[in-house]
Amino acid sequence: MADAPEVEAPKLSKKELNKLARKAKKDEKVTEKGGNQQQSASMEQEDYSKDFYGSYGLVNSSEKKELNFLRVKEINVSNATKDIWVRGRVHTIRSKGKNCFIVLRQGVYTVQIAMFMNDKISKQMLKFVSSISKESIIDVYATINKVETPIESCTQKDVELLAQQVFVVSASAPKLPLQIEDASRRAPTDEEKAKEQENQLAVVNLDTRLDNRVLDLRTTTSHAIFRIQAGVCNQFRNILDARGFIEIMAPKIISAPSEGGANVFEVSYFKGSAYLAQSPQLYKQMAIAGDFEKVYTIGPVFRAEDSNTHRHMTEFVGLDLEMAFNFHYHEKLKFYFIFQVMETIAEVLTQMFKGLQEKYQDEIAAVGNQYPAEPFQFCEKPLILKYPDAIALLRENGIEIGDEDDLSTPVEKFLGKLVKEKYSTDFYVLDKFPLAVRPFYTMPDFKDKKYSNSYDMFMRGEEILSGAQRIHDADMLVERATHHQVDLAKIQSYIDAFKYGCPPHAGGGIGLERVTMLFLGLHNIRLASLFPRDPKRITP
Amino acid sequence: MADAPEVEAPKLSKKELNKLARKAKKDEKVTEKGGNQQQSASMEQEDYSKDFYGSYGLVNSSEKKELNFLRVKEINVSNATKDIWVRGRVHTIRSKGKNCFIVLRQGVYTVQIAMFMNDKISKQMLKFVSSISKESIIDVYATINKVETPIESCTQKDVELLAQQVFVVSASAPKLPLQIEDASRRAPTDEEKAKEQENQLAVVNLDTRLDNRVLDLRTTTSHAIFRIQAGVCNQFRNILDARGFIEIMAPKIISAPSEGGANVFEVSYFKGSAYLAQSPQLYKQMAIAGDFEKVYTIGPVFRAEDSNTHRHMTEFVGLDLEMAFNFHYHEKLKFYFIFQVMETIAEVLTQMFKGLQEKYQDEIAAVGNQYPAEPFQFCEKPLILKYPDAIALLRENGIEIGDEDDLSTPVEKFLGKLVKEKYSTDFYVLDKFPLAVRPFYTMPDFKDKKYSNSYDMFMRGEEILSGAQRIHDADMLVERATHHQVDLAKIQSYIDAFKYGCPPHAGGGIGLERVTMLFLGLHNIRLASLFPRDPKRITP
Repeated sequence: MADAPEVEAPKLSKKELNKLARKAKKDEKVTEKGGNQQQSASMEQEDYSKDFYGSYGLVNSSEKKELNFLRVKEINVSNATKDIWVRGRVHTIRSKGKNCFIVLRQGVYTVQIAMFMNDKISKQMLKFVSSISKESIIDVYATINKVETPIESCTQKDVELLAQQVFVVSASAPKLPLQIEDASRRAPTDEEKAKEQENQLAVVNLDTRLDNRVLDLRTTTSHAIFRIQAGVCNQFRNILDARGFIEIMAPKIISAPSEGGANVFEVSYFKGSAYLAQSPQLYKQMAIAGDFEKVYTIGPVFRAEDSNTHRHMTEFVGLDLEMAFNFHYHEKLKFYFIFQVMETIAEVLTQMFKGLQEKYQDEIAAVGNQYPAEPFQFCEKPLILKYPDAIALLRENGIEIGDEDDLSTPVEKFLGKLVKEKYSTDFYVLDKFPLAVRPFYTMPDFKDKKYSNSYDMFMRGEEILSGAQRIHDADMLVERATHHQVDLAKIQSYIDAFKYGCPPHAGGGIGLERVTMLFLGLHNIRLASLFPRDPKRITP
Repeated sequence: MADAPEVEAPKLSKKELNKLARKAKKDEKVTEKGGNQQQSASMEQEDYSKDFYGSYGLVNSSEKKELNFLRVKEINVSNATKDIWVRGRVHTIRSKGKNCFIVLRQGVYTVQIAMFMNDKISKQMLKFVSSISKESIIDVYATINKVETPIESCTQKDVELLAQQVFVVSASAPKLPLQIEDASRRAPTDEEKAKEQENQLAVVNLDTRLDNRVLDLRTTTSHAIFRIQAGVCNQFRNILDARGFIEIMAPKIISAPSEGGANVFEVSYFKGSAYLAQSPQLYKQMAIAGDFEKVYTIGPVFRAEDSNTHRHMTEFVGLDLEMAFNFHYHEKLKFYFIFQVMETIAEVLTQMFKGLQEKYQDEIAAVGNQYPAEPFQFCEKPLILKYPDAIALLRENGIEIGDEDDLSTPVEKFLGKLVKEKYSTDFYVLDKFPLAVRPFYTMPDFKDKKYSNSYDMFMRGEEILSGAQRIHDADMLVERATHHQVDLAKIQSYIDAFKYGCPPHAGGGIGLERVTMLFLGLHNIRLASLFPRDPKRITP
């Protein structure tokens, strides 16, 4: 059987479906009561399939049914001719007269179901099934049938299911706020837009997607994105666990802004007020002062920035790490094995990229189908550039920029382009930022106090990590905080943490959604957040 | 060398230490300049050790020193006679005349350092070292020396270090707000208190500990507690990853209280306001409606409860999971392998307990030294009790309680005691709670609507998990929310999530700090939180 013809039956609501199912049962009872003489008269109405379709009603754990379900992924030629149960969603449904075709979806896998009216499948059954709304969850008992012509519209191309029984598990409202097919469609390029203005298919815009996130999450692309994102966290933890890091939990409710007073959310806290942590910075440093030596933490961070850009959110997930070292933030450090401090952070990222490209090939390809992007490129040994060298490179290419200026977003992007051209990498480290553009707790470069022992890391020309050697001396911290006009009273407990001896240490914070977005070459960070938060969105 | 005698030299501040070190250098220069005739005159002052001690000053990455440090843990007889560098904290320091003994601490490991005035170690050097404050970080170059009498006060009992060089890396203020030894001391039992009122040693009270958390975190007990806590998260994730769960991130800023209007923190959100999530409940359910099938998330949850008890915090870490199933929340479910839904959650916990007892023996023992507790006991197959049976058990033991009453904290504790006596387990599941005492989204038990398909899990008689089959039908959710007088407008996007088909599902939420506390038998949850938050504490 090749792909099904494109005809749709009118859809019924859940109530109507249940009514139809109840009517079938009732007809059955009438027939039973009426006995033999009526039976022949109602031959036309008699439903010989009546036990083989319907709705379960609410599945409320009243009954254990021991059906042995096969996963859609496992429905293939090796199982051909077998009769199996499968549960999935009605991805598409098309019926015409005496047959009905369903594409059944389970996660990212799809299989075609075919139904033909015959001596086992009644007219009534076909009518019932044809009326099931898209996105409803159904149970199907069917025979796996090998097909000659591959079914191109499904992931399971070599087989189809010949349905024998169909039950509705959970019905969808017939009218969907967005179609999964539309939400899965590749956005047309500008060229395509120009060419075929007329017969363009619908593409779902971002707000509609996010307003109806539960539906949008069902697309293959969304599944792939969030599997990869889980992979980022998993890789991050595994790599650091192997290096003797310990996971900590940092509080989010804090008594004073952790990164300065701007951009902080205030919380009503009983009779007083508190703030939401802009980073776990102070807490991972306190853990270092508490002799944990090497720590990491994954958790939400909050920024009250009124930035409505493709890469800002008010809440995102930070992958933070911090480690003690001996003398130099570039030194080789022997712990469980030898590693360099700043390079370790870069290597965590390159190892992660490698791990993702190995383990998530299918997912990366799936995202690429909808959002085409150049594959993410990186060097085996991370490229490390010094800030002054980056400034020089920019100047060579016509950018006017001062020695101690910070990089603006467009300049950052342009630098990424230049670096890619010169070094063939989408990932690099920029070391030795000007002291003036870094937070008060950053260790200055004592060889040239214009600069600091701090670094950013970039993917596709966008910053994904910011880090530094931190000041571990209370007196110096007071001096630098005063210079930055930070209210000392508010950070007293932070300063106190360094009064009783603290090892030199460095670390960094990575934005999870930025890594996901830039690794995949997505155009908006919201696609890489399950339920994104920005100045205009806190729902769903 | 046996344990050192107990005498302490007066301590100098960091500034004084640096002064002393500078003076040593200056004396040296004077000597050099003065030439030979002065040299003999200043023989008494001449410091032949001057290059072998001092302070590094601020370690600011100006210089890479390639010292090959040995970990304190690795300082043992197999390395005896070797000369090594080691970095650690001055745990205790005692000097008298011509010798000085230091207990050097690195994490949970300690080693004794001995120094004797001789032709390599000058009077001045001994004076300098004797004046180093406790908790300062020092680098020591020393010979590992096998000892005949075990050094009972250190973890490394069979060897000591004979110091040749000592440098201060980061000096501590001489006056500590608490002594690590006092903070590490086992609290006396009531009996002990009664007996030896007079010669009792100081024990640090909880508020002092938490006010000076950075110092308190340096104790062996704190290190052990937070290693075990990291282990809880690690086990939780590994067990669920192996079962095909996917990790998700749930937002913490939400537009409406997720668990009803009480006990929620309000956040100023630009020109409007928002709330802090009381649980990731709605979001993990939406992920299920988005076809993720089996999800978990670890993250902070916030409760604005003005409860000042041993087991409540306003911010804690939730280990949450949720999974789709087919027909019954007790059914056997085949996914990657066969598992039962509610039992899976219980098994995650028992597997976790087992894993912790295997991997963290030393840490559990260390905590037990300070906070003695009965070892945590549990059955191989989790004990599952039905709520009515628990009520019956309570009534048999003289408790008056109605069929549909919730368990108060003391009754919960008492029930735990009865269960322990009868079934020899500190962990059990209570299934089928009265519907009336559960949140609106709980699936009723359709066989007896007085009850519900919900469960709690307990450790040492205290609740650590609450869970249920959830209502996955939008209409029914509206009905139940209305019954609970929940404002429908506020939960519209939650209700909408179930309009487009959703599989039956169940899950639960575990309190990380409660698990840690109760697994170890600690008496206060704050000991199991790195930086605890309660109505009266949001700092440090």
